[in-house]
Amino acid sequence: MAQKPSIPKGTRDFLPSEVARRNYIIGIIQKHFEHYGYQPIETPSFENLDTLMGKYGEEGDRLIFKILNSGDFAEKVDKAIYEQQDSKSLYPHISEKALRYDLTVPFARFVVMHQNELQFPFKRYQVQPVWRADRPQKGRFREFYQCDADVVGSDSLLQEVELVQLYDTVFTDLKLEGVTIKLNNRKILAGIAEVIGAGDKLVDFTVALDKMDKIGEEGVRNDMWVKGIPQESIDKAQPLFALKGSNAEILDQLSDFLTTSEEGTKGVEELRYITEALDDLGLASCTLRLDVTLARGLNYYTGAILEVAAPEQVSMGSIGGGGRYDDLTGIFGLKDISGVGVSFGLDRIYLVMEELGLFPETLDRALDVLCINFGDKEALAATKLVQQLRRAGMKSEVYPSSAKIQKQFKYADNRNVPYVILIGEQELQQGEFVVKDMKSGTQQSYTLENPEAFIKSL
Amino acid sequence: MAQKPSIPKGTRDFLPSEVARRNYIIGIIQKHFEHYGYQPIETPSFENLDTLMGKYGEEGDRLIFKILNSGDFAEKVDKAIYEQQDSKSLYPHISEKALRYDLTVPFARFVVMHQNELQFPFKRYQVQPVWRADRPQKGRFREFYQCDADVVGSDSLLQEVELVQLYDTVFTDLKLEGVTIKLNNRKILAGIAEVIGAGDKLVDFTVALDKMDKIGEEGVRNDMWVKGIPQESIDKAQPLFALKGSNAEILDQLSDFLTTSEEGTKGVEELRYITEALDDLGLASCTLRLDVTLARGLNYYTGAILEVAAPEQVSMGSIGGGGRYDDLTGIFGLKDISGVGVSFGLDRIYLVMEELGLFPETLDRALDVLCINFGDKEALAATKLVQQLRRAGMKSEVYPSSAKIQKQFKYADNRNVPYVILIGEQELQQGEFVVKDMKSGTQQSYTLENPEAFIKSL
Repeated sequence: MAQKPSIPKGTRDFLPSEVARRNYIIGIIQKHFEHYGYQPIETPSFENLDTLMGKYGEEGDRLIFKILNSGDFAEKVDKAIYEQQDSKSLYPHISEKALRYDLTVPFARFVVMHQNELQFPFKRYQVQPVWRADRPQKGRFREFYQCDADVVGSDSLLQEVELVQLYDTVFTDLKLEGVTIKLNNRKILAGIAEVIGAGDKLVDFTVALDKMDKIGEEGVRNDMWVKGIPQESIDKAQPLFALKGSNAEILDQLSDFLTTSEEGTKGVEELRYITEALDDLGLASCTLRLDVTLARGLNYYTGAILEVAAPEQVSMGSIGGGGRYDDLTGIFGLKDISGVGVSFGLDRIYLVMEELGLFPETLDRALDVLCINFGDKEALAATKLVQQLRRAGMKSEVYPSSAKIQKQFKYADNRNVPYVILIGEQELQQGEFVVKDMKSGTQQSYTLENPEAFIKSL
Repeated sequence: MAQKPSIPKGTRDFLPSEVARRNYIIGIIQKHFEHYGYQPIETPSFENLDTLMGKYGEEGDRLIFKILNSGDFAEKVDKAIYEQQDSKSLYPHISEKALRYDLTVPFARFVVMHQNELQFPFKRYQVQPVWRADRPQKGRFREFYQCDADVVGSDSLLQEVELVQLYDTVFTDLKLEGVTIKLNNRKILAGIAEVIGAGDKLVDFTVALDKMDKIGEEGVRNDMWVKGIPQESIDKAQPLFALKGSNAEILDQLSDFLTTSEEGTKGVEELRYITEALDDLGLASCTLRLDVTLARGLNYYTGAILEVAAPEQVSMGSIGGGGRYDDLTGIFGLKDISGVGVSFGLDRIYLVMEELGLFPETLDRALDVLCINFGDKEALAATKLVQQLRRAGMKSEVYPSSAKIQKQFKYADNRNVPYVILIGEQELQQGEFVVKDMKSGTQQSYTLENPEAFIKSL
């Protein structure tokens, strides 16, 4: 009996119209990556297990898809290990490879392995799928694309400036207006924790602060208290909840607040440089907003922290993010390489674009011309014509069989074809073809000798 | 201690210049897929194990990469199964997903699952990686891309004609001259086996015949004999080894030879239609050659069989292949859907293009303009200029730090940049920028107000 087919949970098939929309977004992102001087690399879908394990925390380790060794993997395992029936003990014996979990760790591994073949600063982009054994839910999948651009080997703040410009350029080109780019700096967060006397609780402090959007000031205070941050420290943090005004004004308030912290003051200086440069350069459609509550898995970042929020009228989490990390390649043996990068969230950008109706209509046109098939001889003449149309860049085809004309026209309708060409017996005798404009319903004849006249008419 | 990084055997990292070359080939293939009316789809990297197993023969089953179940997979397995220490018994209990092995079976699964959302005939293309646990060797990898175009739901021979044209169009556009497209038909092979009285040994017969290129006539005869094909049958097959002349002449000889076989005669008719249509339409750079020894894993194909041979001066196996299959979707419950398709071998095409020096030089240019960084103020002016160059489609960047000029020029050299822009203190005061042509060494000044003058000069 035939199988009833299905696909694994959390994965997706993409129909042509969906691929066209995804490729539209990816194409625009890639184009601007390249204009900004980033170069594409690709890494294998699976890495050695020890390249990935231990890089994403305990939760991450669990979510990494492990690949079963090929060959006779079972007999090589000690019986005592089987007897434990413990997955954590067993998997290292039957799996030595795993699907990549993100593009950043493979990139760090790549930089270290190919350091002698690269020019530093090295600006790379990478658009490839990643896999996570997460519980699937709306907008979260087990296979999804990441679109990352990173620079390694430069600690210049000009890179941060440029990455904000890059976000602005891409979202402007996608016609996605109202995007907010939120900016923070780990040094600011560290400075605040220091100033309020919670320096030893930096992670708890920032994790709580990061929830501001969701649970509000009261919730954040409570969260801090639960995590054991002294009430006195929480009270000292009060001015942070009242930051107001332009980015420059917020920086002034922060500067006052952080005056006793060397690290915090350095953070203010960095943010000032970035925001002033971007004020001067100008953004086309995005808004840059300082946000001291932004943390994004802090232990990763050492300087700037970036996050992109979708336009307010759409309820969607962040559609991108990034930041500076100072020692990512260190784990693979290459020290003191500063990196900074951003990521675009393809799936969420897609959902936002769809909700706002921003995909160009032309994406639905997978075929420009369909030639009706009136029989072998006519179809051959149509195939000759189609050869010329294709050379002119038109997506065109001859209906493969001389089915009923109604059926062929229905196919043309369903494929949303703007022009149908008819070469019947009579047209063939007269050396002509008839073009039917499917929108207006009008028809126009051209000679088979000179299809250029039709091509030029478009 | 830091890990010394490596990647799994049979996988590859791609450096920017390699990605550019691969994307050049893929871009041309995709462009023509679309001109020919094929639409892109994408399927998940992993499928349910039972979708893939049993579709590629016993050897194929073994080469499929299986993914370990996530969560506590180990404790769910019966101890008795562990005790067998047998991989084949164990894996179904700890793995329910596997990486796709080709694009054809997932496509068949896709067609069945989405049959109500598709227009038939459905022309799809798919360019995605596949994975095989093959022993890695030169030109064979464990992860590689397939580029497939297939039509399902039409048994018209016009599709075969068009697929040959498609090959011709792509290889002509790649400027890869001297490609031979070999054509056969399973009905011819079945007819020959029938005529020589070896109808019950069809597979052995064709497997032997398929080796003609490698082991010659004597070897093939010997191989047939070893496989138990009677000497009398082998002798009867003699005329096949002496087929000569144009495609039309070969068809005449085949027609005579197969006159007593209905199936064989049908095969001759089909090939005659295809070759005559293509004679009429003409090929731009490829040669179409009938080859009765061509089999390509016969059990798959039911009609046309296609294989593409690289130009003779390059020693490389086939760089593409395909054919007609009449019941691929049947295994998933959708009967009587005829399909025909072709595949492009990206890795081998790449090697051939490289050996023949056919990649355009422009692919090595990842950056059009580098602005030298003379300090914060100058760099900001350069960033403003670069914004405008990028808008004009130029890949451009500012060197991120005000490093020594020599170092910055060396970076420009290494990145193969044709134009270096200088905005020093003096230029900034005068509102100018200097463009140095790195090939000729000449310099030219333009005003910062009007960078259009530079853009237009290119």
